[in-house]
Amino acid sequence: MIYTIEPIGEIITAFKNKAGMPIQSNGAKGIKGQIVLKEAFVEGLKDLDGFSHIIVIYRFHKSQSFEMLTTPFLDTKKRGLFATRAPNRPNCIGLSVVRLVSIEGNVLNIENVDMLDGTPLLDIKPYIPAFDVHEAERVGWTEERTNELPEVKSDSRFE
Amino acid sequence: MIYTIEPIGEIITAFKNKAGMPIQSNGAKGIKGQIVLKEAFVEGLKDLDGFSHIIVIYRFHKSQSFEMLTTPFLDTKKRGLFATRAPNRPNCIGLSVVRLVSIEGNVLNIENVDMLDGTPLLDIKPYIPAFDVHEAERVGWTEERTNELPEVKSDSRFE
Repeated sequence: MIYTIEPIGEIITAFKNKAGMPIQSNGAKGIKGQIVLKEAFVEGLKDLDGFSHIIVIYRFHKSQSFEMLTTPFLDTKKRGLFATRAPNRPNCIGLSVVRLVSIEGNVLNIENVDMLDGTPLLDIKPYIPAFDVHEAERVGWTEERTNELPEVKSDSRFE
Repeated sequence: MIYTIEPIGEIITAFKNKAGMPIQSNGAKGIKGQIVLKEAFVEGLKDLDGFSHIIVIYRFHKSQSFEMLTTPFLDTKKRGLFATRAPNRPNCIGLSVVRLVSIEGNVLNIENVDMLDGTPLLDIKPYIPAFDVHEAERVGWTEERTNELPEVKSDSRFE
């Protein structure tokens, strides 16, 4: 079975290229962007302004291929693709939780933006800690690396 | 632009119908299931066993349509679709964080399962609190409802 998906909007950011981008929204604090939703979906934004954070699901639209082993930004060793957040992956689905600053018509002003400019938007969901926070005892190869998050930026390895 | 996506595996659970299902993985503690990955992707599982929790992205394959306003399980009022986690939504992309118990070849044994049996798998990512936990000050209409999560089950409203 093959499914089709169609963007419901577009994400506008200052990042024209992967090199130099933050690698996660928690490494992008205060960086502003916008989501421009197609007009047909604006009614679905009702009540969303009550949430301080939203889950944004999007297409890694510059990803063309993937390899089963890949070297993530926070490491120097090849890791299994599904043990990384690399953008080059099957189905090219990206996931970021961003701060929702305001909604004006079909435009959402957001912060903590780690997406490329022009990223196709696939879905928006409310971020709800009671649903979305989980007590993870083990974080694999990232254990001693995540404190580097604010400093580490993307490079061109996934171009 | 329209994209195609193709499942990389399937999720096996005890839930044959939506009615009676847990509505979130945090309302499904201890409920077991399996992810069966297509053989072509098994190499990508390397290093994943170091993580206690994984993000599972999948197709809400029983969703056929959506409405811009919908009444979520934890409420009695219609809310904007993007302010809910309802399965009937554009692009039908579902997201659950589950506990990874073990990996045997192309089979991942998981817990905290809130998906239908036969759900098409689109992606697996490691759950990393440093990336995935955000301090949300406001949770909109859900504020006084999320304590009901363990008791509330799905019904047939989204069939």
